[in-house]
Amino acid sequence: MSTRTVIYHMLRPDSVAVIGAAREPQKIGHQVVKNLIVGGFPKDKIYPVNPYANEILGLKCYPTVKDIPYKVDLAVIVVPAKIVPKVLYDCSEKGVKAVAIISSGFKEVGNVKLEKEIVEIAHKGGFRILGPNIVGICDTVKSVNASFCQGLPLPGNIAFITQSGALAIALVGWTKLKRIGLSDLVSIGNKADIDENDLIDFFGDDPNTRVITAYLEGIKNGKRFLEIAKKVTLKKPIVILKAGKAERTLGAIRSHTGSLAGSDIAYEAAFKQSGVLRASTFLELFDWAVALSKLSVPSGDNVVILTNGGGAGVMATDASEVYNIKLMDIPKDLAERLRKFMPPFGSVYNPIDLTGMANKEWYKGALKELLKDERVDSVIVLYCHTAVTKPKDIGDAILEAISETGIRKPIVVSLIGGEECLDECERLTSKGVPCYESQEKAVAALGALYEYKRNVERIKVRTIPKLVVNKSEVRNIIKEVIEDGRNVLTASEATVVAKLYGIPVLEKPLAKTLDEALSIANKVGYPVVLEVESPQVLHKTDVGAIYVNIKNEQELREKYNKIIENVRRKVPNADIKGIIVRKMAEEGKEVIIGMHRDPIFGPLIMFGMGGILVELFRDVSFRVAPLSIEDVDEMIKETKAYRVIKGFRGEPESDIECIKETILRVAKLAIDFPEISDIDINPFFVYEKGKGGLAIDVKIILRKD
Amino acid sequence: MSTRTVIYHMLRPDSVAVIGAAREPQKIGHQVVKNLIVGGFPKDKIYPVNPYANEILGLKCYPTVKDIPYKVDLAVIVVPAKIVPKVLYDCSEKGVKAVAIISSGFKEVGNVKLEKEIVEIAHKGGFRILGPNIVGICDTVKSVNASFCQGLPLPGNIAFITQSGALAIALVGWTKLKRIGLSDLVSIGNKADIDENDLIDFFGDDPNTRVITAYLEGIKNGKRFLEIAKKVTLKKPIVILKAGKAERTLGAIRSHTGSLAGSDIAYEAAFKQSGVLRASTFLELFDWAVALSKLSVPSGDNVVILTNGGGAGVMATDASEVYNIKLMDIPKDLAERLRKFMPPFGSVYNPIDLTGMANKEWYKGALKELLKDERVDSVIVLYCHTAVTKPKDIGDAILEAISETGIRKPIVVSLIGGEECLDECERLTSKGVPCYESQEKAVAALGALYEYKRNVERIKVRTIPKLVVNKSEVRNIIKEVIEDGRNVLTASEATVVAKLYGIPVLEKPLAKTLDEALSIANKVGYPVVLEVESPQVLHKTDVGAIYVNIKNEQELREKYNKIIENVRRKVPNADIKGIIVRKMAEEGKEVIIGMHRDPIFGPLIMFGMGGILVELFRDVSFRVAPLSIEDVDEMIKETKAYRVIKGFRGEPESDIECIKETILRVAKLAIDFPEISDIDINPFFVYEKGKGGLAIDVKIILRKD
Repeated sequence: MSTRTVIYHMLRPDSVAVIGAAREPQKIGHQVVKNLIVGGFPKDKIYPVNPYANEILGLKCYPTVKDIPYKVDLAVIVVPAKIVPKVLYDCSEKGVKAVAIISSGFKEVGNVKLEKEIVEIAHKGGFRILGPNIVGICDTVKSVNASFCQGLPLPGNIAFITQSGALAIALVGWTKLKRIGLSDLVSIGNKADIDENDLIDFFGDDPNTRVITAYLEGIKNGKRFLEIAKKVTLKKPIVILKAGKAERTLGAIRSHTGSLAGSDIAYEAAFKQSGVLRASTFLELFDWAVALSKLSVPSGDNVVILTNGGGAGVMATDASEVYNIKLMDIPKDLAERLRKFMPPFGSVYNPIDLTGMANKEWYKGALKELLKDERVDSVIVLYCHTAVTKPKDIGDAILEAISETGIRKPIVVSLIGGEECLDECERLTSKGVPCYESQEKAVAALGALYEYKRNVERIKVRTIPKLVVNKSEVRNIIKEVIEDGRNVLTASEATVVAKLYGIPVLEKPLAKTLDEALSIANKVGYPVVLEVESPQVLHKTDVGAIYVNIKNEQELREKYNKIIENVRRKVPNADIKGIIVRKMAEEGKEVIIGMHRDPIFGPLIMFGMGGILVELFRDVSFRVAPLSIEDVDEMIKETKAYRVIKGFRGEPESDIECIKETILRVAKLAIDFPEISDIDINPFFVYEKGKGGLAIDVKIILRKD
Repeated sequence: MSTRTVIYHMLRPDSVAVIGAAREPQKIGHQVVKNLIVGGFPKDKIYPVNPYANEILGLKCYPTVKDIPYKVDLAVIVVPAKIVPKVLYDCSEKGVKAVAIISSGFKEVGNVKLEKEIVEIAHKGGFRILGPNIVGICDTVKSVNASFCQGLPLPGNIAFITQSGALAIALVGWTKLKRIGLSDLVSIGNKADIDENDLIDFFGDDPNTRVITAYLEGIKNGKRFLEIAKKVTLKKPIVILKAGKAERTLGAIRSHTGSLAGSDIAYEAAFKQSGVLRASTFLELFDWAVALSKLSVPSGDNVVILTNGGGAGVMATDASEVYNIKLMDIPKDLAERLRKFMPPFGSVYNPIDLTGMANKEWYKGALKELLKDERVDSVIVLYCHTAVTKPKDIGDAILEAISETGIRKPIVVSLIGGEECLDECERLTSKGVPCYESQEKAVAALGALYEYKRNVERIKVRTIPKLVVNKSEVRNIIKEVIEDGRNVLTASEATVVAKLYGIPVLEKPLAKTLDEALSIANKVGYPVVLEVESPQVLHKTDVGAIYVNIKNEQELREKYNKIIENVRRKVPNADIKGIIVRKMAEEGKEVIIGMHRDPIFGPLIMFGMGGILVELFRDVSFRVAPLSIEDVDEMIKETKAYRVIKGFRGEPESDIECIKETILRVAKLAIDFPEISDIDINPFFVYEKGKGGLAIDVKIILRKD
């Protein structure tokens, strides 16, 4: 059975067994049975399992799951942790399709072994596990409250996946209060088996879900997440609240679920690359999700704000800048038509200010003009409660404008005021027009829709480059380094590796003797740089192991000997492999290109401004490899360095193509050799357009494990 | 009568006349009378004025305000704009103490003259005006609803000043819905006379107000604002939502109130300097205000989070970083005591996770430990609705912990869930424990309290430097420039001005002849720089009017003539005042120091990193002059440039004292000469600590008006 099919049976089962069902009302085993009944799941398809009871809540009870004479789609387990393996064997014999384990006492309390064991039992038995340590499953499509959440959420088309159980229970109540409908609310707990990736993949094809949302503290398999999220985003929006940005948070997460959290930078990069919208609070997450679940993607960028309050218009304009909303300049003919719906002191400068005198007819008339005008793509309707017009009038104006024109463009609304506004807001939202308590929330929600639109357009085209490299020779070098008991490549080794991967790199020919050094210098041409090649010498300047701008043979002889002398004296244990004799490189613009292998997502590629600036301004951007050509383009443009290499203040443009290719080749090197933990090209000199670039220093470090 | 007394009579009058009271219910003149009655203002102290009516809403009507046989504290005017002057003369004769003009049709529709006229009438008559173009006044202290807002806000101790009338009406309803109490809600409209400064000053001493909040689109008098806000902040918090950050917003503001909005940078600087908290939405403004109005300032920085949901704790930790909350590391002994109130798998790593099993007793016990421990300064209590405990239990736990220990430390709460949480949240807040729907809001509110604490500590100590300067000679130079019909000082003029103000500046001696040039060069020593001094030559490099690194007499002769030749050919109309012969300055770290005169706040002083970086990273900070020594210190530390001059990557520390003094002297120059619109020292080379710095190029521009 495919994972999707398993999840279908899990979330939308035809029958549910509750293993560990209890008679005592305070027990979770009792609550789950009760919640299933109260939630509206067919009573004759609920099978409590408890060897010591005949009946629970009026339902016949079975000693074991094997004793149930009917097909069992989903088994919910609430027995103590140590009994879980036993009942899983029963499930296996019974042939249940999916198992949700509410029981805790596994990895979250250090019991890693038991958690591994139950997954193995499940896989051998041909079924899959959700959990353990979950609150359960709430599905409104088939009315399945297989959880200890009090009541099901309201039905709707937003799926919510949560790694926090407490949040699951709390949000059932909160979303009800806010009248937000969910298709499913799934607690994933320790995600020993089924994880966020499986669920995102499932909801991606689920006709009952229009938006996928999640609260996550970590992602289990970063590579798979990227693949699935990219694919699903093209079908429907994914909004994730990924907690754990703060340094301290990592501590908090570890202490409470034992989840291995990758660096937040990697998450940020992965979300960008896969088109995932990242919310920073659950309020924001649901504000966005409501708009995304009700509106279709606008056809263009032109947004118009319609208001009866200048102040609300001003604040919405501020917010538009924050949320990347483009306010349209109103064309003259449209302005003329809008003038009919306002007093002489109204304004047709977007925001369109109908003034506090605005009544239902004006709102409706103006909105109809905006809907009918093909140049307008989306509308933000704002209303401050006045003595002149009731919120209900504004709601009617909007709904009538839509039905009378028959045109559906994205419209978001904010009705600002008291109880009446709140009621009308809920009515409008339920009619498919998302309404919010403040102008900023309305703008932010439309902003999320536009971000989704841009993301889809962006990730639709991804070109994977074809690069010719010499993999086998690099493999040999790495093998030698490992055999040598080292994890850091020497400068000349790293140079050779870079060269084999097609990265333009400053050659670092190695001289074993003074004569060799002289002959190399003659070949590359003076002035040259001399530096020691020795794994033990890390800070060459400090010990006098590097000299630059050596102008002639005499100077070379002198400095050659001096280096050897210095190193012998200051690093007595140094194994001197030779002396590098290299050209003085022509100076270019300094950039930095690097790679660090993230435990969750793999190779995290970095690009940014070089020199002192890297540290000071952190003008760097990141993406997870494998990289498409578009990824590289975007990551370069994200930095301020881009302005410098593009030709800043009249300076000529740099060879950006060369940077792009170097980044792609670094990414390929990281993909091809999982042994490499870090690559650091700093500085990389980039020259004028057409003249390429040069890696001056290349550091390559291997993983220690 | 002082402005404060006038405002007292205006907001909290003993008697109110409504001039333009009307019988027709849809008219504002009717609504104001009705609102006063319904709001609970003594009926026998409401005097409707209307020459065509005997009685309105059961109250005796007077033909003019002069006919009222009683004392009138406040007159509310709702007659058409053109009649306002007439009724103001009546008010003057009657001797009313304050007038609020609801009528519109003044500056906001271009009628600037009429607006000036009414202010003059008021001032001659010895009273003051609020408005025109306002919604009115809502005061809960004396139950005065002298407005067309439907109903008064709930009573409370937050004052709200608003430049948007529509927002006033809307927020009466909204604050009621949210159970937020206000002392006053004042609409200031066109603020022809009384403005935000007067009101902030009044509320600063008002015993009924604990927090002053405002929605503003602009400030009328920046200098006075700074003085008042600084003074008031030391007594109580000021929270301002200043709209109009977006470029486009400036357009929107101009089109709807004609307010002259200064640059947002100046507002940002002024708020920092005066300790004002800046909210970015009205939701945020009131979230903060509620906490600020109920909690006293914490005695220290140590904050502890108490939660029953790991997820909520993680999100709160993330938010703590965003809002500058310092989470305390729990000392061992306290951790031991807290362990009693959680299961073995709970966590004493802050956030303290009592787990989903937490009941009322655990919450109460743990909170009591935190209250009793002197090392803990503030507590954030989080609760996710569970099946185990009701929100009411948590509320009781908190209130009992406070009353049983008798210790009041700042506590903010978030109860996350549905209806029951909302109800309990309102109850807790009403009992003085601010409660929010999400953990981020709770953290943000506590963050605002800490920001207020820091602001007070910061602005309490402000040292005004004593600087010796030569003002009279600068006055002469500026006079000459103006008489010369110019508004830009030449390089040598600017240099002299800088020198007279004690700014270390590269001397730019002017040679009128080649012989003079040679003699100057001998004096300053080769190599030198030659550049033309001519008001018409702006881009010296472009026309070949500057040469650097001139090594000897022969080269000087050659380049001197070349400059004259180049300028004559390329800028034929140039008035060549001579040739500057200056030393090649020793290179230092490049910073930039500047001043731009803001229309609202006056001299806006800038400091930042120099060179290409200014443009690329905008690593600059701003403050409004006059500057205290502490202002300068803070503005320098705000930049990344600070890390560079402090000694970055092992480089020696720069002469920061010299930069500070130069900034102070630039500020003084701007204060002393309002004629100067811009000063630009770029670059300023700063040398090693103790070795001073040097202004290389000084530009000074005068105002054109």
